[in-house]
Amino acid sequence: MRTLGVLLFPDFELLDVFGPLEAFGHRLARDHFRVCTVAATAGPVASVQGTRAIADHGFADCPRLDVLLVPGGMGTRRNVDDAALTGWIAARAAEAELTLSVCTGAALLARAGVLDGRRATTNKLAFDWVVSQGPRVRWAKRARWVDDGNVVTSSGVTAGIDMSLHVIERLTDPATAAAVAQAIEHVRHIDPDDDPFARD
Amino acid sequence: MRTLGVLLFPDFELLDVFGPLEAFGHRLARDHFRVCTVAATAGPVASVQGTRAIADHGFADCPRLDVLLVPGGMGTRRNVDDAALTGWIAARAAEAELTLSVCTGAALLARAGVLDGRRATTNKLAFDWVVSQGPRVRWAKRARWVDDGNVVTSSGVTAGIDMSLHVIERLTDPATAAAVAQAIEHVRHIDPDDDPFARD
Repeated sequence: MRTLGVLLFPDFELLDVFGPLEAFGHRLARDHFRVCTVAATAGPVASVQGTRAIADHGFADCPRLDVLLVPGGMGTRRNVDDAALTGWIAARAAEAELTLSVCTGAALLARAGVLDGRRATTNKLAFDWVVSQGPRVRWAKRARWVDDGNVVTSSGVTAGIDMSLHVIERLTDPATAAAVAQAIEHVRHIDPDDDPFARD
Repeated sequence: MRTLGVLLFPDFELLDVFGPLEAFGHRLARDHFRVCTVAATAGPVASVQGTRAIADHGFADCPRLDVLLVPGGMGTRRNVDDAALTGWIAARAAEAELTLSVCTGAALLARAGVLDGRRATTNKLAFDWVVSQGPRVRWAKRARWVDDGNVVTSSGVTAGIDMSLHVIERLTDPATAAAVAQAIEHVRHIDPDDDPFARD
């Protein structure tokens, strides 16, 4: 049983958070993962879309995370300069088994130093800005997601669902990931290099 | 500008709610839709996965909805017998331009009488149960979504994203729907009858 924590911050992208939480938190994966949300302070956090979700924990009372997931969204444009936030990410990533990002969440991982020397990807529409946040990262222009060992980064928004199913498969077994995909009627991308949104 | 309201209830399925909210609430669709969440009582509502979202409105203070969306989730098994809930759905659907459901949300629409004589679909894993809730509905066994005029129902979970993009296209224009799909890196199903999860 692993604990997966998803970071929330003001102006997070809804589906970057809830695609992965749908998959990891699904009843068919419940024997393997417990999920929670965490923000600087526990309580309501407003998304880009306006809908508010509740952070179960603040940074101070967040349990140990086996898997840390950092979403994207317009909030990342401000957050890359928030040393308390990137410091928390760096500390939690250092002790986690796996650190994941969706979309522009990769910019936060980059600024936290988590991606230095690593291969990573992000949303293709925001690619240039994210790349500017991580000069020591080996950015992949064409990838649905990139699995670089203890760091797995995905492209934009719905790519986070494919990445999550990949991670579920890697940490549990193919049957569990397939069962979740079937239940949520998700047509998976199973090839991480099959990226319909790459622009080169 | 239309107001889209998404119903929340205990044990709603996360992605049934947040896939559509991601699409309708996206900044590229912001000139056309304002989105909100509504539950019997305003405030936190826990999903099947445990994560809590906040209902912006209670039934009593919910604004007029141009589009009503009803999600699925394990909560629907109890809710079909909640006359206050199905009564609220029936009243709001009667005055809405469009009523939408994702997954087993169709069972709630059926029990509210909204689907009588209409063509509709739902999650294929829960198909028999949902059908049992709507004997006067023309259930489609093979459909990613069904557009029956002022009622549009989708299959399981991620099918709600495809349905939402279809409705955005119908209510605005193809370019807006395409731009949202591109931004969220979603590979659309554009044929409503292309249903990889049908079982017949």
